[in-house]
Amino acid sequence: MSRRTMVRPGGRSARVQASVHAAVRELESEVGREALTVPLVAARAGVTPSTIYRRWGDLQELLSDVAVERLRPETAPEDKGSLRSDLEAWAEQFLEEMAATSGRAYIRDALLGDPDGSNAGQCSDYAAEQIDVILDRAAGRAEDIPDVETVLDRVVAPMMYRILFRPDGLDTAYARQLVAGLVGSTDR
Amino acid sequence: MSRRTMVRPGGRSARVQASVHAAVRELESEVGREALTVPLVAARAGVTPSTIYRRWGDLQELLSDVAVERLRPETAPEDKGSLRSDLEAWAEQFLEEMAATSGRAYIRDALLGDPDGSNAGQCSDYAAEQIDVILDRAAGRAEDIPDVETVLDRVVAPMMYRILFRPDGLDTAYARQLVAGLVGSTDR
Repeated sequence: MSRRTMVRPGGRSARVQASVHAAVRELESEVGREALTVPLVAARAGVTPSTIYRRWGDLQELLSDVAVERLRPETAPEDKGSLRSDLEAWAEQFLEEMAATSGRAYIRDALLGDPDGSNAGQCSDYAAEQIDVILDRAAGRAEDIPDVETVLDRVVAPMMYRILFRPDGLDTAYARQLVAGLVGSTDR
Repeated sequence: MSRRTMVRPGGRSARVQASVHAAVRELESEVGREALTVPLVAARAGVTPSTIYRRWGDLQELLSDVAVERLRPETAPEDKGSLRSDLEAWAEQFLEEMAATSGRAYIRDALLGDPDGSNAGQCSDYAAEQIDVILDRAAGRAEDIPDVETVLDRVVAPMMYRILFRPDGLDTAYARQLVAGLVGSTDR
């Protein structure tokens, strides 16, 4: 079980987490990602370095947690009136955010300091939750819908694979093409 | 340009690279990945630590290079007599190797110590080359074939996405299902 599962919301533990995360975000923008150290983050957050080591293990695990927080979607996907246009708008925005320099850095951080895989899983769950909202809405309009895992395979996975392994020439037309390939085939 | 592009095969530089890579592989199996340090690798390889820092920058970049070497396919894909069976056999083997503990560690290493993205790109190129062989063979049998990028999107990307972000319940049936979804649709 991860150290993080011991954190209870509302108590001292939650306050420590909030101030340490805030310290990382502030220092990242002030001194840059490469200059971060546990003592620096601890001093800014007003905790001891050993508090950070005890809770997160090392800097990479802390950065992974902060990255996942930043990858959390802030709003529900926009309602554009049809499954295809909702998925297109969501996929275009997802690709833009994740393929940006900051998005790539967060994905790498989330994957790296993640010994038990829970942060990577959380990133994927965020995408699945957004897709669920889109599919529920489409079902409410009596549209034919694919299942969430199929949308992950056909739309999310190719975008994420190319962001990580094959980023040349990625653009929003690619996101639309993936959606067209999927929604076209479920229309049959 | 990466430091690594300056390496010429056959010279002192190539010998240093071979002995340093060999030292990493030996030490990984003897003392484990976590205990590796640049001085330890240098001592085993018979070079100075500064030789390693000069060529690779840091341990993470060195481990990334070694990981890519280990992810290089050793043989051409097997000829099973049809596009579908060739792709199925290749995808099953790819999934088994990459989803294994060692495969996951190499993928993470390859992605991590890779500031210019060339190692991740190399991993994807290995897959594309294997797929190319399969598609050429199928074209020679006068089968209808998809293009390489489509096979990457429909077969490789979902496997890699799930290995990295959503590994629960991955098995070879999943690889076959992805191939069936693709080759079924190009049969039309």
